[in-house]
Amino acid sequence: MELGQVPLAFSRLPMFPFFDMAHYVASVMALKEQRGAVDVSVRSPVACWFSAMLCCFGGSVLSSLMLGEPPVAFLAKGTNILLASSVWYLVFYCPRDIFCRCFAFLPLRLLVAGMKEVTRTWKIVAGVAHADSHFEDAWLVMVAVGWARGAGGGLISNFEQLVRGVWKPETNELLKMSYPVKVTLIGAVLFTLQHSQYLPIARHNLMFLYTIFLVVSKVKMMLTRSATSPFAPIEAALGYIFFGLQKTVPKVKSEGATSSNGSSVCDQSSSEQSHDGVKKRQAKKTE
Amino acid sequence: MELGQVPLAFSRLPMFPFFDMAHYVASVMALKEQRGAVDVSVRSPVACWFSAMLCCFGGSVLSSLMLGEPPVAFLAKGTNILLASSVWYLVFYCPRDIFCRCFAFLPLRLLVAGMKEVTRTWKIVAGVAHADSHFEDAWLVMVAVGWARGAGGGLISNFEQLVRGVWKPETNELLKMSYPVKVTLIGAVLFTLQHSQYLPIARHNLMFLYTIFLVVSKVKMMLTRSATSPFAPIEAALGYIFFGLQKTVPKVKSEGATSSNGSSVCDQSSSEQSHDGVKKRQAKKTE
Amino acid sequence: MELGQVPLAFSRLPMFPFFDMAHYVASVMALKEQRGAVDVSVRSPVACWFSAMLCCFGGSVLSSLMLGEPPVAFLAKGTNILLASSVWYLVFYCPRDIFCRCFAFLPLRLLVAGMKEVTRTWKIVAGVAHADSHFEDAWLVMVAVGWARGAGGGLISNFEQLVRGVWKPETNELLKMSYPVKVTLIGAVLFTLQHSQYLPIARHNLMFLYTIFLVVSKVKMMLTRSATSPFAPIEAALGYIFFGLQKTVPKVKSEGATSSNGSSVCDQSSSEQSHDGVKKRQAKKTE
Repeated sequence: MELGQVPLAFSRLPMFPFFDMAHYVASVMALKEQRGAVDVSVRSPVACWFSAMLCCFGGSVLSSLMLGEPPVAFLAKGTNILLASSVWYLVFYCPRDIFCRCFAFLPLRLLVAGMKEVTRTWKIVAGVAHADSHFEDAWLVMVAVGWARGAGGGLISNFEQLVRGVWKPETNELLKMSYPVKVTLIGAVLFTLQHSQYLPIARHNLMFLYTIFLVVSKVKMMLTRSATSPFAPIEAALGYIFFGLQKTVPKVKSEGATSSNGSSVCDQSSSEQSHDGVKKRQAKKTE
Repeated sequence: MELGQVPLAFSRLPMFPFFDMAHYVASVMALKEQRGAVDVSVRSPVACWFSAMLCCFGGSVLSSLMLGEPPVAFLAKGTNILLASSVWYLVFYCPRDIFCRCFAFLPLRLLVAGMKEVTRTWKIVAGVAHADSHFEDAWLVMVAVGWARGAGGGLISNFEQLVRGVWKPETNELLKMSYPVKVTLIGAVLFTLQHSQYLPIARHNLMFLYTIFLVVSKVKMMLTRSATSPFAPIEAALGYIFFGLQKTVPKVKSEGATSSNGSSVCDQSSSEQSHDGVKKRQAKKTE
Repeated sequence: MELGQVPLAFSRLPMFPFFDMAHYVASVMALKEQRGAVDVSVRSPVACWFSAMLCCFGGSVLSSLMLGEPPVAFLAKGTNILLASSVWYLVFYCPRDIFCRCFAFLPLRLLVAGMKEVTRTWKIVAGVAHADSHFEDAWLVMVAVGWARGAGGGLISNFEQLVRGVWKPETNELLKMSYPVKVTLIGAVLFTLQHSQYLPIARHNLMFLYTIFLVVSKVKMMLTRSATSPFAPIEAALGYIFFGLQKTVPKVKSEGATSSNGSSVCDQSSSEQSHDGVKKRQAKKTE
């Protein structure tokens, strides 16, 4: 195989089962790290399972809702559900927490996080194509559905938290975008442009480049524990040009980026840690 | 008619109008017993009516949403809506509360509660069959839709409460399942197994047996005012085997079962009574 | 053109672009007047944009959801989105707030508010016809969808606020109907009756008369800054006859009518101003 054929071969990579499994592992482990999740797993395995499924299949649920299709469709993919449920079981109920400890091993964590990012590209591409089959040439719908499919778990996090009895109305992924949600939005825009043939690049090449960017930036963030979003300067510039925003933007953005330090779009709690008042109120609310 | 034909004849029983009416009476009376519902009926008859419709037709709304069908479809069944609205009117606005007083008479209450349980079986069966017509052989979808159709009022209770200006994010029917929601889940699993021909029993026989179990356990619970779920030991055993849960489970479960003391899945408030802190906070929140 | 042909010609008036634009201007300016909206526009332009789109296209989103159609369909109407987005941009980010200052000029405000009311009639008619094409002769569905299409921004205001990080569960448009929501409900009933041929009046005549009523009452309310709903006496009478409500009704109704003082169904905050306790609690909640 020549070097030029790598992107094409890459774009034909099947997601099932290994990449999907990595996505489930990363999502469920990010769920477990959230405040109160372990309590819920003891109080009500059913709520915990449903919450985990929303983390794993949130993109599918949200994009189905947006296109007026059955949001329970993901339950029809029996093998995927079985895989995700096994992962959920191992993460939350494995004796002595062996499973989590294994995946806390840095190289393995990096591998899983990297593979999860690969599934993101596939989901965005599928979402854009799916939206196009419903609405012809509606590029805004394509962006929205691609975004929803790729970053669903994060976008519906308010309702995923509600299943676990947590309600944080004062923040959401639109008010304070985390890095994964932002980068998915950019990806959705890029793939929509490519799909509408405004970008002079073949799809498999774009998939290859975008995935490399996703994986490299994710790994770099995990290794350096850096909270600096690579987009911060661009955002600040755009915010200044279009919205006349000054100073506040870099601050807000760096806060938003803190949460990208975790391993999933499901993870918002970290950025909350700084607000003491909020934390205490929440703690009181969720007992 | 021979004895062996009883289940078959029973399975052909029409639900409309008497059983449906019993369901409406039980649901709306359970709504009226909730904290603040009478206030709402004075402040805004529209919100009260909408809330009552969600209690009566919650299963239909939720299962439609799950299958991507119009959730307002229940409004097209004019006669049912008229019946439910009459019941709502009589329950909330009958002079001197005559209607409620009548149905507070124990034998009548038992009759209504028993008939309501009969409609549950019919709804689960309809939900399972409906899901199967959308997704072939997707047993998880069948369980979910059968469960949603049979226990809809309970599962969407958070949003039904929101219509009345009440918001209790710290609890929901997944976190703390009430007895009716639990028994509906078991029923949905049984009818799904029967539908997929894993259970060697004819459908009308299963309907007959399951309904008898529902009615008998409901009547027994109402007569003994018992809060002990018949499933508590099984749940404790399963919780111990699969999730390593000890001690906590029986406690949590018995709390959950308290709410089954009421006459409907709409009734969650009773289980809240014990938590003083929660109660006061809620009282403050809802004025 | 004779005088008798005015209603017919009126009913053929195209809404796009001028009337639609007036609707967007009125909706987005009402959004900007809400507590905290300007903060959100600085913190997160994306959340602010999404919130503005929900105010402008809320009726479309809600009626799509109710009929099981894709709620993102409004995003496919590229030109309308572009127009609404331009209005949103000018309202929130125009240098020196020139745009808002222009439209604060009373005659212009009256013109915009009047034109916005015209679009309401068109939406109700479209909603009723759309519902009829889904469910034959289901007059309750027609009323519901016509109402949702005409007053969508108000009915989903709880969720529109959630996008901005505000959560006010203790009130909603069903519990405390504002004047625009009420008059839309009456309109939906009238157009449903006309559509089912129970009203002996041609559609274009009803559209003409209803629109005149809408515009005149809106302009009168804005000029007199009156909080008295024209329906208050009728409501009190109906409330007394059907629900045995006394005294409380006029009080509740006048409170509800206060919010109709603003220029849109999106505006609920004004009626809250009087309740000091509520205000403070909210302020605390939303920081």
